[in-house]
Amino acid sequence: MLSMSRSTLITETMTIRNMLLKQTLQLTTLSSRTTLLQRQFSTSHPRPDIRICFLGDSFTAGAGDDTLLGFPGRLCSALRTDHALDITCYNLGIRRDTSTDILHRWEREVNARLKRNEHLNGRLVFSFGTNDSGFENGQRRVSTTTTLANARSILVRAKEMWPTAMLGPPWTSVEDIDERNGPLSRKLETLCEEIDVPFLSLYQKSEGNGVWAKEAKAGDGIHPNAGGYGLISKAVADWDAWEDFVRNGK
Amino acid sequence: MLSMSRSTLITETMTIRNMLLKQTLQLTTLSSRTTLLQRQFSTSHPRPDIRICFLGDSFTAGAGDDTLLGFPGRLCSALRTDHALDITCYNLGIRRDTSTDILHRWEREVNARLKRNEHLNGRLVFSFGTNDSGFENGQRRVSTTTTLANARSILVRAKEMWPTAMLGPPWTSVEDIDERNGPLSRKLETLCEEIDVPFLSLYQKSEGNGVWAKEAKAGDGIHPNAGGYGLISKAVADWDAWEDFVRNGK
Repeated sequence: MLSMSRSTLITETMTIRNMLLKQTLQLTTLSSRTTLLQRQFSTSHPRPDIRICFLGDSFTAGAGDDTLLGFPGRLCSALRTDHALDITCYNLGIRRDTSTDILHRWEREVNARLKRNEHLNGRLVFSFGTNDSGFENGQRRVSTTTTLANARSILVRAKEMWPTAMLGPPWTSVEDIDERNGPLSRKLETLCEEIDVPFLSLYQKSEGNGVWAKEAKAGDGIHPNAGGYGLISKAVADWDAWEDFVRNGK
Repeated sequence: MLSMSRSTLITETMTIRNMLLKQTLQLTTLSSRTTLLQRQFSTSHPRPDIRICFLGDSFTAGAGDDTLLGFPGRLCSALRTDHALDITCYNLGIRRDTSTDILHRWEREVNARLKRNEHLNGRLVFSFGTNDSGFENGQRRVSTTTTLANARSILVRAKEMWPTAMLGPPWTSVEDIDERNGPLSRKLETLCEEIDVPFLSLYQKSEGNGVWAKEAKAGDGIHPNAGGYGLISKAVADWDAWEDFVRNGK
């Protein structure tokens, strides 16, 4: 710089000044475009698009519930209104389904609902066991060994696809069913711990509940009505793993 | 009788008396057995077991409805509580589904839900069209010719399996969608008349509805909230074909 002529120095300074002015203009334009894009984005994507598939049996389908919500409807309605989450609920509970039935259908039904859009956040919630331990023609419909093998097969594959949780079979107020559901629930819990899938024992939450027992008696003998499904819904909503699972997939 | 001896007459009278006594006893036993059977039957089969599969797109799934009921939940809850029907509702609506998507999945999903028990009364309610007429990458997702071919294929097969009804695509408050949904709905109606499937135009029922438009604007721009889904539910409930379809499969 010291060897530059005065005129060269002036020219050089003007060049630098022009470069700075151009950059300032570019920065201003870029800044306002970014603000606009942010606003557009926050309007069209105000909340993450979360879609939960509930896969299970009649207790997931909500059999006997005059409100037609079941526990998935109650949970998802609360997530939309109390937690301002953009939730879509796919209730894939089927009455009389065993873990073997669910093994054969869950992946195709989930893929039809959660594979189209890479921006969506899928979640899978499984619940089964009561029909496995039920008897048909003098035989247990699905042996405990097979239930656990089915559960492992389903859950290991499921968590590779989407964040996955498991709810154990509930207490039902029917003595011989509950004598089988209790131990089965504990075995499913042990399996879930081993393969790192969040597990909630619905059995523990509904055990001995008078409302459930009363509603089941007034209904088909096993399924509750709004009170029993409200109880399950509350148990899941209060579960410490629930909100983080739904919101962040953890 | 006039030629009979007195002793023969006495013997004969006694025989007749004994026969009458036996018959009276039999009638009493039979009567109490019938009462018992009637009571058992009315306890174990108080109402016919009706299970409805609703197959469609986001409007069937109830996208945007904070109550999580959608129109199928509202309809079925009313059928259970107001009409004392034993209703199970399977909501098989999937967001973004076209008639082609539904063609490829409906039968498998219905069979998983309605084939197990010969005593159950299945019903199928289809509703699609809005995603067919939507545009993706500058092209209509499904041509009108294909939509009508898909609808024919689905509905002709469906009504061989279970009583089947069709609800046309709704008015959505989005001008360019409605310009396509209106004519498509009329073509689907003509097809349904031809193949003898009960058809209800949801388009006519929701057209110009202010609540729907307001809820869609506050939501994602297309889907309503509880008000719009309540409107569809009421339209179907008020449809003169509805109750006979559900109750008697006609």
